Amino acid sequence: MAPSAITIALDAMGGEAAPRAVIDGAAKVAPRHGALHFLVFGDEARVRPLVDAHPALRDRCDIRHTSEVVADDAKPSTALRQAKGSSMRLAIEAVRNGEAQAAVSSGNTGALMAMAKVLLRTLPGIDRPAIASVMPASKRRVVMLDLGANAECDATNLVQFALMGAVFARAVLDVEDPTVALLNIGTEALKGDEVVQEAARRLRAGELPIRFEGFVEGTGLMAGTVDVVVTDGFTGNVALKVAEGTARLIVDRVRTAFKDSWVAGLGYVLARRRFDLLKRQLDPQHHNGAMFLGLGGIVVKSHGSANDIGLANAIGVAADLVRGGTNERIMRELEHLGAPPMQRVAS
Amino acid sequence: MAPSAITIALDAMGGEAAPRAVIDGAAKVAPRHGALHFLVFGDEARVRPLVDAHPALRDRCDIRHTSEVVADDAKPSTALRQAKGSSMRLAIEAVRNGEAQAAVSSGNTGALMAMAKVLLRTLPGIDRPAIASVMPASKRRVVMLDLGANAECDATNLVQFALMGAVFARAVLDVEDPTVALLNIGTEALKGDEVVQEAARRLRAGELPIRFEGFVEGTGLMAGTVDVVVTDGFTGNVALKVAEGTARLIVDRVRTAFKDSWVAGLGYVLARRRFDLLKRQLDPQHHNGAMFLGLGGIVVKSHGSANDIGLANAIGVAADLVRGGTNERIMRELEHLGAPPMQRVAS
Repeated sequence: MAPSAITIALDAMGGEAAPRAVIDGAAKVAPRHGALHFLVFGDEARVRPLVDAHPALRDRCDIRHTSEVVADDAKPSTALRQAKGSSMRLAIEAVRNGEAQAAVSSGNTGALMAMAKVLLRTLPGIDRPAIASVMPASKRRVVMLDLGANAECDATNLVQFALMGAVFARAVLDVEDPTVALLNIGTEALKGDEVVQEAARRLRAGELPIRFEGFVEGTGLMAGTVDVVVTDGFTGNVALKVAEGTARLIVDRVRTAFKDSWVAGLGYVLARRRFDLLKRQLDPQHHNGAMFLGLGGIVVKSHGSANDIGLANAIGVAADLVRGGTNERIMRELEHLGAPPMQRVAS
Repeated sequence: MAPSAITIALDAMGGEAAPRAVIDGAAKVAPRHGALHFLVFGDEARVRPLVDAHPALRDRCDIRHTSEVVADDAKPSTALRQAKGSSMRLAIEAVRNGEAQAAVSSGNTGALMAMAKVLLRTLPGIDRPAIASVMPASKRRVVMLDLGANAECDATNLVQFALMGAVFARAVLDVEDPTVALLNIGTEALKGDEVVQEAARRLRAGELPIRFEGFVEGTGLMAGTVDVVVTDGFTGNVALKVAEGTARLIVDRVRTAFKDSWVAGLGYVLARRRFDLLKRQLDPQHHNGAMFLGLGGIVVKSHGSANDIGLANAIGVAADLVRGGTNERIMRELEHLGAPPMQRVAS
């Protein structure tokens, strides 16, 4: 393996379309990223033929057999206790042991987060990791977190998410000094519940190196008025999925509307290539791959219903994060902040 | 006035485009609803010329002068104490006094809700009113509540919202036995925070006449998998505005994409009428007008940035609610349920 090679640990058994989507996704993304290597954890009898079917995966995969799989409906605590030899756990252990630089899984989110916390540890100064991803908004791409790791958050959690989100945006959006806002039900200072009020007070105090812009509403999130939008995992997850559902609804309506009359139908045929391109841009599979932020290693969560395109995208996200040294950068920035500001965060 | 005439009290001074948008909106909607009459509360010097400019409003408006206006950034408690003669308050008082059957305002939501609660009283068995509206989803129109009246809710509030939402859906969607779900970050029984868990337990117990379907995610909300979606005012407001923002984003992208090449541009021109129709269907102004649910009178909240089209729509919603006897129906159903089930709700 060349020194610049990146090794990614794959949970081959996670997600609705596993293991086929995982292996097909790896085959799709491998040629795009020069020196990519995979540690594939899963049922060898099912995984081996899929790997062998792809010339693009020749000499790129080490298959590590395991017959254990974390169930989609397993409670995180159960998954932690029982599935010691699961494909999910072994993939994260490969990151801990330094065999791989990142792990990718489409499996049970709660179990994945619980295992990642135990095996990779939460970074110093961070109480809870968050799930972060990049959303396509109108004016720019926007980092949003938390997307579902923490259904309930206090003000301290939100302040820490703001800090991690800003560092993440610097690394993945390549924005020098990203603007950060809290998601709220109004932009006036008095709006929202006690948690966002308190988080805003602390962020406004200006003791952390964050360009805090106050509150943003759901419309502002999609307009892209700031680089980073911070919220609790309940609201963030709902917001992400409402955006997804609305996009699907409208793309369907546009198609139906254009097919509704002969003239409009002709217009649709003429514009079809552009429309298909747009549909592709809006397809959640092409935005698949969210990072667990705040851990001592890179874990990328792929959507449970991701297909090969989705998996290829999630693996690409993992490779980009490794190549960009994103997590080292986050760790360095948190360390650089040192104890005093983080204590202020926690106070 | 004929016995079938409907009188609507208008807060002429609320919202960004007041008073013009309010009066122009009334003029737009008046011809569509046969016997509509307006009590217009506002600055007569500004309102009178606007009314006189519309032949459609001749003999339909009583202008009641007041120079007091509730500020957009006023705290609800301040608005309640200070603005005793405000256009907003007088409009609600007209409903209380029976002079009008409904009030419409684009003003400060918090102040409007606070005044409505004090003047119209919350219905027996309901702790807190909610803001409800009908959203266009894929398979059907969906009633969603709360859209922002209560940033923080407990399980009892959510159960009461479910009950009111079901009655509202029967009245406005004309669905015999509407399906109801709680908005959550997963459909599995264990997902979400303690509040939705507890609300789901009580709704599953089946003691209330609600067809409870469990949890729905943001994607399911937009797909229209159920008739009524219940959530707290924070999440509901974010969900509504994310849907709005996403719709705007995609309509813009579609337009740009189609104008991007000569052939696609021709396609766009041919399909333009359909596209404009679709844009109109998706325009939030055409869905403007949310009902305050759980009060002893009808108050319709119009968006602060509503234009004349938005106001016409909100006034139309108010007229439909009066004509359909919606609030009487809600009161009757709550009464019919009687004390025992409502006590169970509160327990």
